Amino acid sequence: MAEAQKEDKLANKKITTRAENYSDWYLDVVEAAELAEHAAVRGCMVIKPYGYAIWETIQKTLDAKFKETGVQNAYFPLFIPKKFLEKEAEHVEGFSPEVAVVTYAGGAELKEPLIVRPTSETIMYDAFSRWVQSYRDLPLLINQWANVVRWEMRPRLFLRTTEFLWQEGHTVHATQEEADERARLMLGIYKDLAEELLAIPVIPGVKSEGQKFAGALRTYSVEAMMQDGKSLQFATSHNLGDNFSKVFGIQFSDSQGNKQFGWQTSWGLSTRSIGALIMVHSDDNGLVLPPQVAPIQIVIVPVWPKENEKEAVDLEVKKIVEEIKNSKNFRFVVDNSDKRPGEKFFAWERKGVPLRLEIGLKDIANNSVVLARRDTAEKKTVKRDVLLPEIEKLLAEIQKNLYGRALDYRNKKIKEVDNLADFKKEIANGNFVLAYWCEDKETEAKIKEETGAVVSCIPLEQTSSEGKCVYSGKLSKRKAFFAKSY
Amino acid sequence: MAEAQKEDKLANKKITTRAENYSDWYLDVVEAAELAEHAAVRGCMVIKPYGYAIWETIQKTLDAKFKETGVQNAYFPLFIPKKFLEKEAEHVEGFSPEVAVVTYAGGAELKEPLIVRPTSETIMYDAFSRWVQSYRDLPLLINQWANVVRWEMRPRLFLRTTEFLWQEGHTVHATQEEADERARLMLGIYKDLAEELLAIPVIPGVKSEGQKFAGALRTYSVEAMMQDGKSLQFATSHNLGDNFSKVFGIQFSDSQGNKQFGWQTSWGLSTRSIGALIMVHSDDNGLVLPPQVAPIQIVIVPVWPKENEKEAVDLEVKKIVEEIKNSKNFRFVVDNSDKRPGEKFFAWERKGVPLRLEIGLKDIANNSVVLARRDTAEKKTVKRDVLLPEIEKLLAEIQKNLYGRALDYRNKKIKEVDNLADFKKEIANGNFVLAYWCEDKETEAKIKEETGAVVSCIPLEQTSSEGKCVYSGKLSKRKAFFAKSY
Repeated sequence: MAEAQKEDKLANKKITTRAENYSDWYLDVVEAAELAEHAAVRGCMVIKPYGYAIWETIQKTLDAKFKETGVQNAYFPLFIPKKFLEKEAEHVEGFSPEVAVVTYAGGAELKEPLIVRPTSETIMYDAFSRWVQSYRDLPLLINQWANVVRWEMRPRLFLRTTEFLWQEGHTVHATQEEADERARLMLGIYKDLAEELLAIPVIPGVKSEGQKFAGALRTYSVEAMMQDGKSLQFATSHNLGDNFSKVFGIQFSDSQGNKQFGWQTSWGLSTRSIGALIMVHSDDNGLVLPPQVAPIQIVIVPVWPKENEKEAVDLEVKKIVEEIKNSKNFRFVVDNSDKRPGEKFFAWERKGVPLRLEIGLKDIANNSVVLARRDTAEKKTVKRDVLLPEIEKLLAEIQKNLYGRALDYRNKKIKEVDNLADFKKEIANGNFVLAYWCEDKETEAKIKEETGAVVSCIPLEQTSSEGKCVYSGKLSKRKAFFAKSY
Repeated sequence: MAEAQKEDKLANKKITTRAENYSDWYLDVVEAAELAEHAAVRGCMVIKPYGYAIWETIQKTLDAKFKETGVQNAYFPLFIPKKFLEKEAEHVEGFSPEVAVVTYAGGAELKEPLIVRPTSETIMYDAFSRWVQSYRDLPLLINQWANVVRWEMRPRLFLRTTEFLWQEGHTVHATQEEADERARLMLGIYKDLAEELLAIPVIPGVKSEGQKFAGALRTYSVEAMMQDGKSLQFATSHNLGDNFSKVFGIQFSDSQGNKQFGWQTSWGLSTRSIGALIMVHSDDNGLVLPPQVAPIQIVIVPVWPKENEKEAVDLEVKKIVEEIKNSKNFRFVVDNSDKRPGEKFFAWERKGVPLRLEIGLKDIANNSVVLARRDTAEKKTVKRDVLLPEIEKLLAEIQKNLYGRALDYRNKKIKEVDNLADFKKEIANGNFVLAYWCEDKETEAKIKEETGAVVSCIPLEQTSSEGKCVYSGKLSKRKAFFAKSY
């Protein structure tokens, strides 16, 4: 009994509301939905089965999209010789403070310490310099699914963890144009993944010089807005130019037999995307998941207030289960636990299951069931003979509604301004600011200092007009998005 | 031209024959088929796309089998606090000499050094002690796909590498019987994977006390014989008893409310299995792959000795490609490179592609194509209208033939002996020895010292008779397999 009470207490722990404390709300949602927990090692996390199932769906979807464009998977070592990381000046400067170092192994001090990979440009490009010899070897299109380590001082589940899971794609091309096209192609794949699978609207753009990847010529990203108005970098795609190929000697003979350096890209998406998924859709009752990525799309809850009703209800549930199994690939569970229906509803709501199917004796008599939506809390009585098409329709509607809702919310919070006073006011109000910007590094630093906002991205879509920089007043060709950032 | 010559030289590098030097042959096959290469960090490897595609098929197949039995995937941290590893006495003793240690991270010396996981029992069971509270939480069935590190003094691609990829399953049960059943269930899954997907016959058995996993009550394994008569442990499944649950405090309240310790298992298969795959089937011409796991099942080679034949042949190839795409899920490529047909045949033979389809003008006139098998080198002329069913039939035949061939070879090399002289002779001849054994640790050590053979396993299938131990002469109930071992 004591155990059962302890369990109930945990299961019923109140979720902090977003208004009370957004940051506590986030952690409460992660805990209540059993997505992940802090590990014994500071900064690291344990991704629990329910959270990992989300990652598996992201992986599967993205991997298929990559392969359609000719990308092949491979695997490179976890350890990077220190001298490799040091070869590219900006790159080592960018990563040095974050690295973990193995100094002792196999029972002895190592002669050369090994870096636990924070990213794999250097170790991969050492191999690429052997793999690429002729223009016939190009383009080289490689991806790896792996864990990486960047020492994190202020860890936060999914959003910032010392170890995280990701994929990193790395390509080599014969021309700079082709490399830039590839970087944009992969950006488009990330955009589709965010919008179609996760129902997260994103803005494709270019990072400012101050925010770009260490060693890149140009960093593209897709940026999402969280409900607190902060921006989150959902995924990045870098045009590396020939910075790394010159350092690692990635050279090919062109069709005339002349030696040329390769043009490169790298692109990645991490378990951080799950943090975005949580923050974009969830509410004060817990997690909300779009059906396409939900590990469980439907929970079936049999309702038998009296013990003697159980048999008839369970029989009908079994029929429904058979129907679903025989016709559709819905991911579903039946909650047969001995909790009361209300407790069950509460628990599955917190786990963000998109659709709940309730069925009791009265429903059976009416030849119907009740379907309840997680996104809108609407309930609908549905005749048994149209149950499967209704479920299919509702799941599609929920997916669409979540995307539309997130898009409306974001668009309302985008404020276009042309002066610093308005800029400061809108940032303070938790909005995204769109404004002309001169793209100077110093301006960027000053804006951050004075407002707390950073350049989220310079959106790829721009009108052809020009205007005055919101900070420096200089004539500027492009607008940028500014926001506080994760 | 210089580049092209260099490439040709590499592509044509002779493969050492098995008779000349088995160990060089293995490395030559791995290199010629472009499966993997040594990394810049000693003991680590780069798994190249062709090798990684094999791992992906193994993963996908195994993962589906696990999930059918109720297993869920999760992810635990790469780093293990030193004190965790030290909690179980046998476990720390088993792994201490092999571990890599992070002592410096985030710009400072760490107060407590972190072990890079050599296996995850300890870090997982710390979490399990929180996850398991009641009998309702059992069985807990968790798996993770991950990289692990065990410092390797004599590295060998796939077979022994400092970092390797694997899956490790970890379960908790209410009773010892249920845990042992689970350990055997997973062993059965590994056996099916070996035999059905990889066409590798394996012997299921129990490891000797000297060979069991550090911390386990009992280690089950499936053992495969390589062509040199050495045994290779294909996968293991451990009944851990309550050794770890007592140390990590994994306790549950049973239905009467009494506290009990959980009973555990762990089980794993690694990229080492690819080493077995290579060694069981390949020949002096290079890699041989069973169709089910082959990244490319068919290579289509258009033959146009004269330039003016190219157009007609290519047109017919396009038709064949369309037919395959529209009806079957064969994995295939068309080799349109400008090499001569003989060179192409040679290259794809080294990569172990099960079936080669040749087509030239004469074949088109005869309304046929030529199919060549990698396993037997047989060529067969096949009419165009039965091409797809013929391919399907041949792929199935090749799969079956490779398994049968490996099984025959192994069975011929199993020698049952009842005296030490014969034992030594058969081991020296590169055979597997089956003999009664007293199961004493000292005998095991002496046999190894005197013959170089270890106990591969005590097979689960035993006759009910008894006999004298081949070394000590003591009355013994079970026979064991002895062999030199990878």
